[in-house]
Amino acid sequence: MEFKISKDLIQQLEQLIQNRDDRQLEVLLNDLHHADIAEILDELDFDEATYIFKVLDSEKTAEILLELEDDLRENILSRLSPKEIAEELDELETNDAADIIAELSKDRKVEVISELQDAEHAKDIVDLLRYKEDTAGGIMHKELVKVNENWNVLTCVKEMRVQAENISKVHSIYVVDDEDRLKGRLSLKDLLTTSTKTPISEVYIRKLNSVKVDTEDVEVARIMQKYDLEAIPVTDELGRLVGRITIDDILDVIKDEADKDYQLAAGITQDVEANDSILELTKARLPWLLIGMVIEIIASFVLKSNESAFQKYSTLIIFVPLLSATAGNIGVQASAIVVQGLANGTLKKFSRSYFSKEIAVAMISGTIISLLLLGYHSFMYQQYQVGLAISISIIVVILFAATLGTLVPLFLHKNKIDPAIATGPFVSTTNDVFGIILYFWIAQMILGF
Amino acid sequence: MEFKISKDLIQQLEQLIQNRDDRQLEVLLNDLHHADIAEILDELDFDEATYIFKVLDSEKTAEILLELEDDLRENILSRLSPKEIAEELDELETNDAADIIAELSKDRKVEVISELQDAEHAKDIVDLLRYKEDTAGGIMHKELVKVNENWNVLTCVKEMRVQAENISKVHSIYVVDDEDRLKGRLSLKDLLTTSTKTPISEVYIRKLNSVKVDTEDVEVARIMQKYDLEAIPVTDELGRLVGRITIDDILDVIKDEADKDYQLAAGITQDVEANDSILELTKARLPWLLIGMVIEIIASFVLKSNESAFQKYSTLIIFVPLLSATAGNIGVQASAIVVQGLANGTLKKFSRSYFSKEIAVAMISGTIISLLLLGYHSFMYQQYQVGLAISISIIVVILFAATLGTLVPLFLHKNKIDPAIATGPFVSTTNDVFGIILYFWIAQMILGF
Repeated sequence: MEFKISKDLIQQLEQLIQNRDDRQLEVLLNDLHHADIAEILDELDFDEATYIFKVLDSEKTAEILLELEDDLRENILSRLSPKEIAEELDELETNDAADIIAELSKDRKVEVISELQDAEHAKDIVDLLRYKEDTAGGIMHKELVKVNENWNVLTCVKEMRVQAENISKVHSIYVVDDEDRLKGRLSLKDLLTTSTKTPISEVYIRKLNSVKVDTEDVEVARIMQKYDLEAIPVTDELGRLVGRITIDDILDVIKDEADKDYQLAAGITQDVEANDSILELTKARLPWLLIGMVIEIIASFVLKSNESAFQKYSTLIIFVPLLSATAGNIGVQASAIVVQGLANGTLKKFSRSYFSKEIAVAMISGTIISLLLLGYHSFMYQQYQVGLAISISIIVVILFAATLGTLVPLFLHKNKIDPAIATGPFVSTTNDVFGIILYFWIAQMILGF
Repeated sequence: MEFKISKDLIQQLEQLIQNRDDRQLEVLLNDLHHADIAEILDELDFDEATYIFKVLDSEKTAEILLELEDDLRENILSRLSPKEIAEELDELETNDAADIIAELSKDRKVEVISELQDAEHAKDIVDLLRYKEDTAGGIMHKELVKVNENWNVLTCVKEMRVQAENISKVHSIYVVDDEDRLKGRLSLKDLLTTSTKTPISEVYIRKLNSVKVDTEDVEVARIMQKYDLEAIPVTDELGRLVGRITIDDILDVIKDEADKDYQLAAGITQDVEANDSILELTKARLPWLLIGMVIEIIASFVLKSNESAFQKYSTLIIFVPLLSATAGNIGVQASAIVVQGLANGTLKKFSRSYFSKEIAVAMISGTIISLLLLGYHSFMYQQYQVGLAISISIIVVILFAATLGTLVPLFLHKNKIDPAIATGPFVSTTNDVFGIILYFWIAQMILGF
């Protein structure tokens, strides 16, 4: 069942485009899933992609539009008239349509909205545009099945069929009162096994998880995962049912969250991607490089002020890169485990037992590294006292880096800052510098320079 | 709807446990969701948690067991007899039961399996134990609704009701032939709107995504996300329907995959967590530290062999940490964007246009950093020629690190190695060392030492 774009297929399509053979193009593409077609369009050049897009009918292209990479979508949208865009949006679910509208310029937004044919759909889309992107309101859709608590099962089944027409996945039927306030839910199963005259109020389940429109999207994701929910209703300030979030909506939230940690660890702010512009990529990266540079300038002072020491004991300076890299590495390791512990709930705040464990790990690793280094240095340079100074200070530096690596993310977390920053360049360069300071300080005590 | 464990609740529970007030405990806990109870048990000490566990009935405890942290689960299981464990497993879905059995020792496994009451369920569980953890077989469950293509709609609906009894989420009804081979699927909607005498073969949808038992779990996750599927059937070598994977099963796969990248970037192998043992944590971390150490020993040679140079131009050495940190940072940034591009499909292989973009970003960042450094060095130390040497070499080093950072993950990916390794300590320390080599080489050319 796996779909792989073949070179043959691409060549065949390019040939058909050249020949303007729309009929054959349709035959070839109609059998494919819209996600596969989007993958093909991403491979073609822009004019070819636009050509194919115009050949296919809007039922298919609307779904394709969602799957395209950002820049291709932007390009194609710029070539469509507001009326054509509106036709695409009429085919989409409310939240997907709202996402696309949000990408348009202010003027085009208004034009496109005025061209939407289905008034109810248009109202829902406009409604969704009000919510902030990273809230339940921003990721929910309007499509859901709801029934009034005063109906009976028969009315309910009839209404349900009408409502379910446009909904791909029903999941739950929500029960509301006359004011549209969420009261509970009905299971499809119960509906099938209850007499048709039974009032809904007698069969519906009153206990129900829900979130507010302004609940943060990551919190929605956490709740849905914890309680293993495939869908959750969203209510407004008055408790009225205004939308629904399904598990595929939060899949992106979960992935984005994980990506963000990874990017922070790699020293990238903002959510950039390989196909972003040079300017965007630079803006996301340069700040961390500059911060790292400023911190390392402190290191240059430390080295400068110890110049006489390493002119006397030359092997002292040559192990600085080793020492600072080790400090950086162990600090990042310690932070990463804390960050993940905070994310998955294994760790909630500072815990003495966890801290002791981390120190034990650092102690073991530090001792092994230190002994290896002592042996190596003694063998290579035969300056036993200098070797001793280096190996003792590396243990101290490792313990210090592990401590800092554990405490910094906990501190950031407590102050509502994303702790993943601790695994990024800011903390690792800080560790570098502290490592170098400690190193010379201990060496000075032992060697007495 | 949010649940937060309060100190009051914990104290109240501890009091009830001390008083052996089982009745009140049940009243207090029965209203809570099993995921919330698991969270509470994780907070209590081990004896208290076990006490509560034994008070609750197995329908509830089975679900709690799944949600507990690994070590608490292990502890509780060790206090239960094989018969008691089997009772818990009888309440669980096949894949959850199989996961728990997989955690038991070899002897206990056999004992527990022999105590399972529901023969059909036991067979399914044993069947699932055969598959490797990271394949479709390893994450699928046996619970699904299937009908024979030779039945009519009426038989189908009857059969479905029986089968659906034990299934929380139906999603799709699969259609098989007499040999149990997967032929297609039926939608609930069609079933409701078709005359009861219609043969199934006339209404079912023949086009259907499916995966093989040995498909890798990450591939299953990719397919389900791409085609926006909430469930996918799994077939064996003969095309027989053997299980089903739902979207919540792959949620963990997606999260684990993201976590793995993050851990590799932080220099941690193996999937360790904050609550793992000291030994496990050390085993996951020490190798990277040692690799980093060995690589940095090369740096010590480079410094050693340039000793005379930095005794003459002392500011040369003091900027080594700055230089190597910058090289490391930019290399990791470059790699991280490639790694994410490969993961989300924006980047598939080496692309000249992407590479040029990366070089442009590096060139801009490099120029800015270099000019700042030149100004700073000139102001501080008034050795203009040395300042020039440092600032020129930092541009070269940055370009080199960006190149390496871009190419290494692409190379790893091509050779089927996880490219996220490139954002870890191995590549960043390598960048350090290359940076230092280049630095002295360029300085030598300019200053002529």
